[in-house]
Amino acid sequence: MQLRSTVPLIHNITNYVAMEVMANVLLATGASPAMLHAQDEVAEFAAIASALTINIGTLSPAWVNSMMIAAPAAVAAQRPWVFDPVGAGATAYRRQIAGQLAALKPSVIRGNASEILALDQRVSHSLASELGRGVDALDSVVAAEIAAQRLASQLSCVVAVTGAVDFITDGQYAARIANGHSLMTRVTALGCALTGVVAAFIAGGGNILMNTAAALAYYGLAGEYAAAQAKGPGSFAVAFIDALAAIEPATLAAEARVEWTQLAKLPN
Amino acid sequence: MQLRSTVPLIHNITNYVAMEVMANVLLATGASPAMLHAQDEVAEFAAIASALTINIGTLSPAWVNSMMIAAPAAVAAQRPWVFDPVGAGATAYRRQIAGQLAALKPSVIRGNASEILALDQRVSHSLASELGRGVDALDSVVAAEIAAQRLASQLSCVVAVTGAVDFITDGQYAARIANGHSLMTRVTALGCALTGVVAAFIAGGGNILMNTAAALAYYGLAGEYAAAQAKGPGSFAVAFIDALAAIEPATLAAEARVEWTQLAKLPN
Amino acid sequence: MQLRSTVPLIHNITNYVAMEVMANVLLATGASPAMLHAQDEVAEFAAIASALTINIGTLSPAWVNSMMIAAPAAVAAQRPWVFDPVGAGATAYRRQIAGQLAALKPSVIRGNASEILALDQRVSHSLASELGRGVDALDSVVAAEIAAQRLASQLSCVVAVTGAVDFITDGQYAARIANGHSLMTRVTALGCALTGVVAAFIAGGGNILMNTAAALAYYGLAGEYAAAQAKGPGSFAVAFIDALAAIEPATLAAEARVEWTQLAKLPN
Repeated sequence: MQLRSTVPLIHNITNYVAMEVMANVLLATGASPAMLHAQDEVAEFAAIASALTINIGTLSPAWVNSMMIAAPAAVAAQRPWVFDPVGAGATAYRRQIAGQLAALKPSVIRGNASEILALDQRVSHSLASELGRGVDALDSVVAAEIAAQRLASQLSCVVAVTGAVDFITDGQYAARIANGHSLMTRVTALGCALTGVVAAFIAGGGNILMNTAAALAYYGLAGEYAAAQAKGPGSFAVAFIDALAAIEPATLAAEARVEWTQLAKLPN
Repeated sequence: MQLRSTVPLIHNITNYVAMEVMANVLLATGASPAMLHAQDEVAEFAAIASALTINIGTLSPAWVNSMMIAAPAAVAAQRPWVFDPVGAGATAYRRQIAGQLAALKPSVIRGNASEILALDQRVSHSLASELGRGVDALDSVVAAEIAAQRLASQLSCVVAVTGAVDFITDGQYAARIANGHSLMTRVTALGCALTGVVAAFIAGGGNILMNTAAALAYYGLAGEYAAAQAKGPGSFAVAFIDALAAIEPATLAAEARVEWTQLAKLPN
Repeated sequence: MQLRSTVPLIHNITNYVAMEVMANVLLATGASPAMLHAQDEVAEFAAIASALTINIGTLSPAWVNSMMIAAPAAVAAQRPWVFDPVGAGATAYRRQIAGQLAALKPSVIRGNASEILALDQRVSHSLASELGRGVDALDSVVAAEIAAQRLASQLSCVVAVTGAVDFITDGQYAARIANGHSLMTRVTALGCALTGVVAAFIAGGGNILMNTAAALAYYGLAGEYAAAQAKGPGSFAVAFIDALAAIEPATLAAEARVEWTQLAKLPN
């Protein structure tokens, strides 16, 4: 958690529902969040920030336009960017935009199983079944592992499928991260906010796959600590922010439940 | 509270202030919220979702355009939609848009007394006085009962006037719901979020008037439980989400304070 | 805190991140918040409200257009308005818009040190160095005192630089307000929300400089009370809202730490 000394500036073009909780999650983690989306400034700012996140939860043409400008600007400035394809399979418009953004060289794609399945279908023209509706996953993480591997290989990025047990891969290696708690699904935008935490963990350079795994373990661990004191989803959300701020690197190292594996090659 | 087993997907085109709390309220209630508003996808999504809500709190032309597309799409797909005419009387623009949306066959209109009086004035060209300013009601629920009955009769929908004691009617029958707590007015967007809960309660079919009454009693009861542990509006908001998640159907049946009545016909 | 009896209506054209917490802060303080930004209604509403705030955190052309309409409408209706130049120095677009809005006769400009330095640079064509990036201040309040005095003199307004110890001035007199707690920087948008509290404190008339000082002391004091019970930034945010609602005028009078001074004239 080197980020606590560098305090990386994370530029987020995200959805309206997630903005406040994402900012608070990033502050608690130790990063400095900035939300801005105007066409006239996103390219300039993407180069000032240490990393960028793009989330299509409440997309519209003007915002998509800014996303399409910001992502290449981040890449040009050698900043990593993380893509969060919220509800990627829900509508034709969303499938189209998600496919276009995925092609703009994200360092990491983070979504739930339904979103990763839908995005793989779009990018790989695969026949994977996709059951998502709205923004909540109806598919299990395990059902999206092949899709994640294919997406990661095809786009040369890390794909993180988050759920009860998270699965992340760069196409060759993979990890399953078992930290977390079911109450995390009862608070809105915690997935979206996690996308920011992944950006904060990879902003300082280093191995993207390993830093993504660390981000997911850290986030899940905060969920475990918060659940221990919560009376319901309201008090859980409060305790979760407290836990994010309280967790120290040594605690994370001791309590992370990450299992690494090497994946078999995908058939052509 | 059949919704806890069906987990209805509720599509919300709502205001920026309310988005996060509305999503968290819906998750705590047991529904699955989705916020999206792009012109290119609202019609498609309105048919995927189980119910739609439209809220004009932070309206602007592009959003109004999407609302005007989404509402008929929901009706065509036989999905109920709930209209929340925030600040309906505050400006000429708002009066005009509120009147146009009210004509698009909502199943339920939920507002505070000032909003219902303003909307009735617009729809019925009545001379009812309307004192609201901003988004907080300055009128009492009782002062809006006739306006609510007239609106319900004219638009063939249920009208819910929420306040210290809520009043709901389909023009013929009415209920007064006494559950609630004054701290609910000290937390922003709890009225807006209630509109989502009404949608969740009517999404599964059944009698709309009775299910709206159940939604209001449930919501008010959560306010009572939360107030019992709150030290102020901040801790109230947290305890309120916990209470929404904790209340069981049997508790609701035992503690709902709903009085039904048959209304006299309105004079022509 | 006369506002608790008058409940001033505060019209806010603010950023997406701040909307909910700003509304809750204003409700806890005792004011009535309204967020609306449509070009077709902002001028009408600015005259209905008691005060206006404008915040450029998530600016875009359509919103800027409404800001440019609302501010003169407020001035024409003799309503004070408060300008919050979020991230004023971050991009060329932001510097330009911040300069244009500053020229529209705000009663108060409130920002962190980096924002005030950037705005002064724009308005005064000064050579003051400006180190801000994103929305978090990297400069100390003391480093921005001259810039604040110059801005206040040039624009005939009150300038408030908030930070560890706040500095406010009308160009001639100044106060330093020592109330506050470092946890306030770990919760998003508390600066933005403070802009609303300043508007609420000056909405009723009276001396703008003194009422701004009172608003800052009140806000900082709530931070101190909240920190005494918080386990981290999540529980702090909740306790902060409770504290805003709980603080009485007598407590504020007893615990405000405000030091007044008369400033030397600026060299030409």
